[in-house]
Amino acid sequence: MAVNATEEKAKRELHSRGYLLKQRAFLKVYLITLAEKKRLYGLQFLDEIRENFRSYGYRPVHSEIYKALHELVDEGILKRIKIKKEGAKFQEVVIYQIHNMDEVRRYKKLLLVELERCRGLLDRALRDNF
Amino acid sequence: MAVNATEEKAKRELHSRGYLLKQRAFLKVYLITLAEKKRLYGLQFLDEIRENFRSYGYRPVHSEIYKALHELVDEGILKRIKIKKEGAKFQEVVIYQIHNMDEVRRYKKLLLVELERCRGLLDRALRDNF
Repeated sequence: MAVNATEEKAKRELHSRGYLLKQRAFLKVYLITLAEKKRLYGLQFLDEIRENFRSYGYRPVHSEIYKALHELVDEGILKRIKIKKEGAKFQEVVIYQIHNMDEVRRYKKLLLVELERCRGLLDRALRDNF
Repeated sequence: MAVNATEEKAKRELHSRGYLLKQRAFLKVYLITLAEKKRLYGLQFLDEIRENFRSYGYRPVHSEIYKALHELVDEGILKRIKIKKEGAKFQEVVIYQIHNMDEVRRYKKLLLVELERCRGLLDRALRDNF
């Protein structure tokens, strides 16, 4: 019963009744990957994510990216660290690092299955209607 | 200006700031295809759509499918027709038929581009994160 409830919650966070992946989860997997590459620094990741999707016409809003980031911290996947800014004696910047690699692997495994499911749904729609 | 406003409205109906296709538009293209195949009869299309997506874990709710259907009627793409039920003298059923083939072609062309854009976005996410 408890396992089912957890699974149901996980599903709701990924999609609505099995439709395509919600934007929040889509952004979370990108933020994890950026943190793995040590590039989740200050506000740079905002520009990096937007630049990445420019050619697809997708421009995620600031607040949506921040909500995704905060969820990852709340879930113990990432951690928030203050570091001294290079060259500046007293200025601090916030970076985000991987907090728990087991949780990273678990989330990415879930997202791999989910992204492939969504691609299958779109492929199906392209075959069925065109 | 008027053209831009129309384009903006069309975009908002397809997606939110360029993220994946909204469910409403996804269902509309299926309903058009069913009407083209003359299978938009009574409530049968509800079961047909759900059966189609069962293996993807996607189960669109009744009300969402009806809203999609009513939008297509409001937009002049489909029309609603009452016909006598076979074998029943007085009973009527509602079927939906194509109302305007130009509008059908226009909508499907738009959705083809959109579905391919979304598939590209998912392919990109699979490449970038795995």
